[in-house]
Amino acid sequence: MSNYTAPSEDILFTLYELAGMSDIAHLPGYKETTSDIVEAIVDQISSLASEILAPLNQSGDQNGCSIVEGKVVAAEGFVDAYHAFTEAGWQSLSFDPERGGQGLPELIAITSNEIWQSANMAFALCPMLTEGSIVALEAHAIDSLKDLCLEKMISGEWTGTMNLTEPQAGSDLTAVKTRAVRKDDHYLITGQKIFITWGDHNLSENIIHLILARLPDAPPGIKGISLFLVPKYLINPDGTLAEQNDLYPVSIEHKLGIHASPTCVMSYGDQGGAVGYLVGEENNGIACMFTMMNHARLTVGVQGLSISERAYQQALSYAKERVQGTVTGQKDRVTIIHHADVRRMLMLMKAGTEAMRALCYVTAASLDYMKKEADASKQKYHDQRFALLTPVVKGWCTELSQELTSLGLQVHGGMGYIEETGAAQHYRDARITTIYEGTTGIQALDLVGRKIIQDNGRSMNSLFEDIKEVLQFIKGSNDEQLATIHKHLENGLADLQSATDWLLANYDKDIHIAGAVSFNFMMLMGTVCGGWQMARAAKIAAEKLATEVTENESFYKTKVITTTFYTEHVLTRSNSYLQAIKTGSDSIMNLDINNF
Amino acid sequence: MSNYTAPSEDILFTLYELAGMSDIAHLPGYKETTSDIVEAIVDQISSLASEILAPLNQSGDQNGCSIVEGKVVAAEGFVDAYHAFTEAGWQSLSFDPERGGQGLPELIAITSNEIWQSANMAFALCPMLTEGSIVALEAHAIDSLKDLCLEKMISGEWTGTMNLTEPQAGSDLTAVKTRAVRKDDHYLITGQKIFITWGDHNLSENIIHLILARLPDAPPGIKGISLFLVPKYLINPDGTLAEQNDLYPVSIEHKLGIHASPTCVMSYGDQGGAVGYLVGEENNGIACMFTMMNHARLTVGVQGLSISERAYQQALSYAKERVQGTVTGQKDRVTIIHHADVRRMLMLMKAGTEAMRALCYVTAASLDYMKKEADASKQKYHDQRFALLTPVVKGWCTELSQELTSLGLQVHGGMGYIEETGAAQHYRDARITTIYEGTTGIQALDLVGRKIIQDNGRSMNSLFEDIKEVLQFIKGSNDEQLATIHKHLENGLADLQSATDWLLANYDKDIHIAGAVSFNFMMLMGTVCGGWQMARAAKIAAEKLATEVTENESFYKTKVITTTFYTEHVLTRSNSYLQAIKTGSDSIMNLDINNF
Repeated sequence: MSNYTAPSEDILFTLYELAGMSDIAHLPGYKETTSDIVEAIVDQISSLASEILAPLNQSGDQNGCSIVEGKVVAAEGFVDAYHAFTEAGWQSLSFDPERGGQGLPELIAITSNEIWQSANMAFALCPMLTEGSIVALEAHAIDSLKDLCLEKMISGEWTGTMNLTEPQAGSDLTAVKTRAVRKDDHYLITGQKIFITWGDHNLSENIIHLILARLPDAPPGIKGISLFLVPKYLINPDGTLAEQNDLYPVSIEHKLGIHASPTCVMSYGDQGGAVGYLVGEENNGIACMFTMMNHARLTVGVQGLSISERAYQQALSYAKERVQGTVTGQKDRVTIIHHADVRRMLMLMKAGTEAMRALCYVTAASLDYMKKEADASKQKYHDQRFALLTPVVKGWCTELSQELTSLGLQVHGGMGYIEETGAAQHYRDARITTIYEGTTGIQALDLVGRKIIQDNGRSMNSLFEDIKEVLQFIKGSNDEQLATIHKHLENGLADLQSATDWLLANYDKDIHIAGAVSFNFMMLMGTVCGGWQMARAAKIAAEKLATEVTENESFYKTKVITTTFYTEHVLTRSNSYLQAIKTGSDSIMNLDINNF
Repeated sequence: MSNYTAPSEDILFTLYELAGMSDIAHLPGYKETTSDIVEAIVDQISSLASEILAPLNQSGDQNGCSIVEGKVVAAEGFVDAYHAFTEAGWQSLSFDPERGGQGLPELIAITSNEIWQSANMAFALCPMLTEGSIVALEAHAIDSLKDLCLEKMISGEWTGTMNLTEPQAGSDLTAVKTRAVRKDDHYLITGQKIFITWGDHNLSENIIHLILARLPDAPPGIKGISLFLVPKYLINPDGTLAEQNDLYPVSIEHKLGIHASPTCVMSYGDQGGAVGYLVGEENNGIACMFTMMNHARLTVGVQGLSISERAYQQALSYAKERVQGTVTGQKDRVTIIHHADVRRMLMLMKAGTEAMRALCYVTAASLDYMKKEADASKQKYHDQRFALLTPVVKGWCTELSQELTSLGLQVHGGMGYIEETGAAQHYRDARITTIYEGTTGIQALDLVGRKIIQDNGRSMNSLFEDIKEVLQFIKGSNDEQLATIHKHLENGLADLQSATDWLLANYDKDIHIAGAVSFNFMMLMGTVCGGWQMARAAKIAAEKLATEVTENESFYKTKVITTTFYTEHVLTRSNSYLQAIKTGSDSIMNLDINNF
């Protein structure tokens, strides 16, 4: 069985040196977030993760969850773990103190998310969905609904879900058919939803379903969809629970991974209609849902980071123990970490994971400036940056996690293919991340279409300036490693600029170009942004090494080596993406459908 | 449930136009292999594959196999399917007619292998292992052993296994501990072997285990290992079966995929020693095993092709049925194959699969020249070429199959993550191919170390000449697509030459360089070789289009488009591999083990 220990040193380095945690602590309302507090939080989260959540990861995978008498029963140990989780207050980190939250920065919530998801991704999906539901209700619900639900959700006594997908409506939500009809002060909801994560379970007293549905007089298409709050158990005005609403889990899916996370088919309104309450305005449900989705997309990007970190820890541990083969110049057989190709795989996992962490945290930091920054221009900068990077964090981190968890399995050789080893579980669990909360293709199209073309490249130019600033800082360094890093980042940036110029000049030449180049564009952008953040980290590490002799010396040296590796082995992919982009859509679209 | 239809048109095109089937039919002993016969064989294989093997693929995955009263029971339907398979004579294709074989070219056996592995990889592993065992016995066993076993194995009445791995001896076979002691005319074998594919089962009357073991007086290391034939049931001199040998399956592994293929822990000699017979000379077992391994490596490379083809067919079928979203200019919602990013994924699957097929078949053709060619220099050419390309076929095709089966799942969106859909099975099944019969790392080291450095680049130079010949043929073409293909192949070849020059000039600068660059070198080489074969195919297709109007016109046009896509989206990766190679081993090895 694999263990997990939160990589606290890199987490704190990334928080403070890259994501600017100290500056965030100066934003209004965050002044209590001192570094002592942050360290203590990371420490406590790590303990719960290592001691309670991580040990349930493999058994949860093996035993899964089940439906007993029409209700979902979570995997063994999950109910107790959830109580430990909520009783320690971990659901409430970033939420409004007036509703029982701790009012901590979003950046801290993302950090905690990284650790929960590494420890037990199937488990952590439940609080993650609750988090997204809280965010949507905070932004769009009327006060009486907030009063009824938010405190219970922030405490974790109740959990939340997102109900978007129907059999005919996946990526394309215009096709949603679930109906809502007005009745007195509420609505009656009827329809079937699929792929509802933690759609039913026995962890909490109540479940707040957020559901996309159509009113009878709604306009067709995406502008005719509304968002409703539908509780599993009806809620009395005093907050106590009444009878069960007209809804039930029809079945749970048999999936490739995240077995302990019940993915439900949910039926609403079999007995005449489930009682629901409007969130936001009628026919404006998609906008409300996107509040939730954007949050969830960032967090799913973090899952890519988390599952890669977990897979890395497991592969590293195996590579340090497994004896196999010899190395020239050494008499005895060696542990496989001594073999260069195994080392390459571990370095790729380590470097990729650290690059993801940096990009996730830096992006999450923008959320705090969006919420708390008083200066309008700074706030706008972060707003644009968050919009630009969210699809990259979601798309690139999750795609990279496919490669890294696969390497984790490969390091184990034949043992990696045996389920008991646990490496295969990370590989299977990771595989959902490029699919849910918008597939990679949807992220890539969002990036290329809405965030670059519609924006006419303005946000991209702002990003380029920031990358150039880092290049300027490390330019002409005498340090051979920094010079290497500079060279590759400069090339990567040039490739990304070239791709952007090409896109803006060519996207309107045929209707398929944006879609055809979107995936490679997103991968190029993630690759370069990862390099940008790693280069920042290396620069800071090199400065620390030059100016202070600290106990962290080996950490800083390691950061410079890891960054060098990243630029040599990952950033060097940038030009292949650029070349593919510049071929446009011809060879992708030329084939008649019948000739596939 | 997914169906499978053998892609006969591309198979026949690849056989005749790329692998030179007509020339092979002129080699001694192959004259009956006319194109009519070959077409009929492909047709019959396809029928059995589609009608009997493919329908058992998903149920085999879901039900797996089990141990009942100490014996392995195959998944439901497998016994009947195996009888249908052997009764039609499919085990015997390429083997000696004097022992009941059909004496057909190895190229035809590889073709049949492609189809079986696509239809049902878990099933096809059983005849594949038998095939490898027959090859080893043909090459190394004394006549009396051949007389006793070969006819039964070639008919498929008995199957064969490879017993190499032990818990402490995986990639490093020097650590084999299984013991063999001489006793009268035979040996007694004692020890435990793991990861024994189809190590026990109820498909056939008897199982011939080929086992690596050590004699008491054997020298240490790799030169002290011998190969033994150990039958499950002892064989009387008249060929009838006697009592069970001293061996049994201890357990079967719970694996990520190929659930219907029993992977056994095998125990030998619990009651004093399993009766075994020496194959080849004492202490020369590794050489004998490599006869088998080289054959198996080619076939596992073919599995990469096969599982990608299967995943492609399933994804294509889904993409043509699933309605989701709209396309500019079309009023109604469309099937997802109309979306550019889905098209990109399908094209990548199609192009990658065809490139693999070409490389596998061309490599297999060398086997026939090695066996039958009278001209010594031609034979030597093919011998060298086969040695050079086998690790590339095994390593690159299986690595590429990870990417392509993952795309197959991705095309399905959320449905891809649901096991009942079947896409996940191909993804899981594919994952073993980069591990068994020598991991990717082992293949890469074989390529770089034994096939390039030890050879001082001679075989590579011969390969370069062949690629240049293709470039020469398509140089200066007026056809825009051929010009694109030429440009990218020229760049790819330059990258491969540059990498080879760099390797030969630098490999001895430190002990880690060969291992450090080996993976990227192998991927670079596979990428370029795939492009080389696709360029040959496009050139031939373009010629056919220019000179004849045939019923295959759309096939040829498709081939040119698919090749263009390959060169734009896959060949363009070559430079990133080259760049990583040229960074050598520093950033891979610089980190102290304690700092990972």
